[in-house]
Amino acid sequence: RIDGARLWDSLMEMARIGATPAGGCNRQALTDEDKQGRDLFLRWCRDIGCEIRIDRMGNMFARRAGIDSAVPPVITGSHLDTQPTGGKFDGVYGVLAGLEVLRTLDERGIKTRAPLEVVVWTNEEGARFSPAMIGSGVWAGEFSLDYGHSRTDKSGATIGAELERIGYLGDEPAEPRPITAAFETHIEQGPILEKQDQLIGVVTGVQGIRWYDVTFWGTPCHAGPTPMEDRRDPVQALAWLCERLYSEVKAYSGDARMTCGDLRAEPGSRNTVPEKVVLALDLRHPQPEGLEHLHRTLYRLAEQVEEATGAAIDVREEWHSPPVVFDETCIEAVNSAVKQLGYSHRRMVSGAGHDSVYVSRVAPVSMIFVPCAGGLSHNEAESAEPEHLEAGCNVLLHAMLARAGV
Amino acid sequence: RIDGARLWDSLMEMARIGATPAGGCNRQALTDEDKQGRDLFLRWCRDIGCEIRIDRMGNMFARRAGIDSAVPPVITGSHLDTQPTGGKFDGVYGVLAGLEVLRTLDERGIKTRAPLEVVVWTNEEGARFSPAMIGSGVWAGEFSLDYGHSRTDKSGATIGAELERIGYLGDEPAEPRPITAAFETHIEQGPILEKQDQLIGVVTGVQGIRWYDVTFWGTPCHAGPTPMEDRRDPVQALAWLCERLYSEVKAYSGDARMTCGDLRAEPGSRNTVPEKVVLALDLRHPQPEGLEHLHRTLYRLAEQVEEATGAAIDVREEWHSPPVVFDETCIEAVNSAVKQLGYSHRRMVSGAGHDSVYVSRVAPVSMIFVPCAGGLSHNEAESAEPEHLEAGCNVLLHAMLARAGV
Ligand SMILES: NC(=O)NCCC(=O)O
Ligand SMILES: NC(=O)NCCC(=O)O
Repeated sequence: RIDGARLWDSLMEMARIGATPAGGCNRQALTDEDKQGRDLFLRWCRDIGCEIRIDRMGNMFARRAGIDSAVPPVITGSHLDTQPTGGKFDGVYGVLAGLEVLRTLDERGIKTRAPLEVVVWTNEEGARFSPAMIGSGVWAGEFSLDYGHSRTDKSGATIGAELERIGYLGDEPAEPRPITAAFETHIEQGPILEKQDQLIGVVTGVQGIRWYDVTFWGTPCHAGPTPMEDRRDPVQALAWLCERLYSEVKAYSGDARMTCGDLRAEPGSRNTVPEKVVLALDLRHPQPEGLEHLHRTLYRLAEQVEEATGAAIDVREEWHSPPVVFDETCIEAVNSAVKQLGYSHRRMVSGAGHDSVYVSRVAPVSMIFVPCAGGLSHNEAESAEPEHLEAGCNVLLHAMLARAGV
Repeated sequence: RIDGARLWDSLMEMARIGATPAGGCNRQALTDEDKQGRDLFLRWCRDIGCEIRIDRMGNMFARRAGIDSAVPPVITGSHLDTQPTGGKFDGVYGVLAGLEVLRTLDERGIKTRAPLEVVVWTNEEGARFSPAMIGSGVWAGEFSLDYGHSRTDKSGATIGAELERIGYLGDEPAEPRPITAAFETHIEQGPILEKQDQLIGVVTGVQGIRWYDVTFWGTPCHAGPTPMEDRRDPVQALAWLCERLYSEVKAYSGDARMTCGDLRAEPGSRNTVPEKVVLALDLRHPQPEGLEHLHRTLYRLAEQVEEATGAAIDVREEWHSPPVVFDETCIEAVNSAVKQLGYSHRRMVSGAGHDSVYVSRVAPVSMIFVPCAGGLSHNEAESAEPEHLEAGCNVLLHAMLARAGV
C-alpha cells in the first residue's frame, strides 16, 4: 500500500506553484510556473535516486532501475501543466501518484524486474498551445518535432522557444522505445463515479475529439447610420450557427459534446460592426460515427451561414483525435488490482483526452480514474478526496507491479 | 469659397499619422498618434495666428479674434481620434474644414464681428475609452471631470493619466461659456445622401444611443466529460439572446439598430466552458419611444436567459444619449447657405453620435453632412470625394459668417 498522506502533501506542495486566489492553479505549459513545477518534480525524483532524461519536446522521464535492464520499462505519468483557471489535481495526480509508487518501493526496498518510469508530458492541456497532448503526441509519432516546436500561443511564442527559455529543451530524441506497459491515473473530470458511488473507474478507452477554428467574416461599419439590411455582421452569424449547432448536438445524443471555449471579436470596438469573430470549437463523441455526424452537422450549418446572415464563415479543423480503445491486458491488470484491493468500480470511457491516447499507439496502455467533487474539472474549485486519491494510487501500484514483476 | 485642394491636402497629411496598411487610420484617443495629430493641428493654427486654449479634458480651442471681443464666438469642430480600424475622414474632416474656413478668411483678410473658434474634442469615438463624446460631454456638463478623468481603456489606463502623458492636460476649466452658434461638418457615415444623389445633408438632430455591458455567467467545466445538461454555458446564453434580440430589433422597425461590437470569453481556453462572456452592445433609434422599446426588449429577453439556458446574465447600462433635436436657427443658417450655393440637399437625422449632441445642451447647434462612398465608415476603406468635402466646407463658411457677422 502507498502512503496516502505523503501523496496528499506532495499534491498540496505542487499546488502552491501558480496558486490562484480562488484556490486553483494557473501553471500553464512552459511558463515560469511550469518550470518551477518541473524543478520540484526533478528534485523529488533525484531524492529517491531516479535517473532523469528529458527529450526534445521537454517530456521528462524519471527512471527507477529494474533487476533486468534488458526488459522494457513499465511507465506511468501524466502532466503538470494546467488550464489558466485550473485545479490542483488534473494531471498532477497522475504524475505524483507515479512518484508515490516509486517512493513506496524505495522505502520498502522492493526491486522490480522491469524498470519503472514516471513521465511528465509537455502541454497536455492544449490551453496555452493547441493541440492538447502534444508532448506525448510528438513522442508517439503522431506529430513531427517541427510541428511540435512551431506551435504558438496567443502572443506568438513557440513551444520550441519556450522550452529553451525555461531550460527544458532536452537532448533525448522525442520518439518511442519499447515499453512493457503504461498506466495513467487521473481524476475522472466528470460526474459518473460520484453519482454512482464507485471508487475506481477502470478506463477502457477515450472518446473522440475534433477541434476547429471557426472564423466569421463581416464588413466593419458604423453602429449607427448603417441600416441592418446592409450589414454583414459576424456576431449575427456566430449567434445563428451556435443556436442551431447547440440544439442539433444536444438532440443527437446524450453522449455528444459541444464547447465554445474561446471567442474574440476584431477590431473589438463597441460602435463598429466587427470585421471578424474567431471561435475555438470543441466537438466530442465516444463513437467514430457519432463524431463524424457532429463534424458533418457543423459543416452543413456552416454552408448555410452566408445565405442566412450575409456574413462569411471559414471552418478550419485544427485537431482530430479519434476514439481510442485501450489494451485488454492493461485493462485486465487494473481490473485485477481493483478486485484484489476490494474497491468498488466500473468500466468507463474517458470524456477527456489524456496522454495515454498517444502512448497507446506505441505501447499497451490503460487508465485508472478516481472521483472528483461534482464532476468538476478545468475549474479552480476542482477537488478530490484524499482517500480516493490514495485508492487510485494503490491500484496503480498493484497494476505496475503485476506487469513489471517483483 | 474655400480652397478645396488645400483642405484635401491637409486631410491627406493628417491621415499619414497612424496610417494603417489597409489605407485607413488607427489614431485612437490619447495615444502617441493622437498626440502627433494634435501637434500638427496646433502648428497649423499657430501659422495663421490663432490663440490656443486647452482645457482639463484635453479639448483644444483655436481662436481667431473677432472685431467685437464682447460677442461670444461662433465655433466649429469635431475630433481627431479614430476607431482602431478607422478611416481618414470621420471627425478629421470636421476639424480641418473649420481650419480651412479660418485659412480662407485669413488669406482674404476678412474680419468677422464675433470671434471664430475651431475645436478638437477629446475621445469622440468611444473606441478606446467609453462612452463616446466624453470630451464634449464633460465640457457641456453631462459628465463630471472626475468621471471623465477616471474612464479606463482595456489595459486599465485612465483618460486623466493619458492626457498627462501626452502633454494635453490643459489648464482651462472644462466647462461651457457663452457661444453664439456652433456648426459641425462630418461625412454622413451612412448611405442616404449617396443613394439619393444629394450633395449636402442638413442635419436636424441625432438619433438616440444606449450602450450596455452584457455579461453572461457560466460555470467553467471540462469540454469532454461534462454532460451538456449539467452545464451552465455562457456562450449558449449569448447565442440564445443574440439570435432573439437581432430578430426582434429588425422586426420592430427599419430605423432600429443593434450592434455587438466587442466580445470576449474568459478564461478563453478551447476545452473549458468559459466562466463568462462579455458583450459590448449598442442599441439605437431616432425616437425616444423607439429606443425605450429596444431597451425593454433587451431586458425582457435577458430575464428569460437563465431559465432558457442555465447561465446567468448581468446587463449594465453604460451610456444613454437620448435623441437630440438641433437648433432651428442654426439649421436655417445651414439651409440658407446650401440654397445660396445651389447645392442639392435634404434634411436628415444623424445615425451616429457627434460632439454636437453635447454642445447642443449649452449652445445653438446644427450639422452639415456630405456623402461618403457606400455609406461606409468605421472602416479603413472609408472614402469621400474632394468636391463633396469642398462643398460641405463652403456651406460651413457661409453658415459661420452668417452667424458671426462680417
Ligand atoms: N485531461 C485533460 O484535461 N485533458 C485536456 C485535453 C482535453 O481537452 O480533453
Ligand atoms: N461619428 C462617430 O463615429 N461617432 C462615434 C459615436 C457613435 O458611436 O455614434
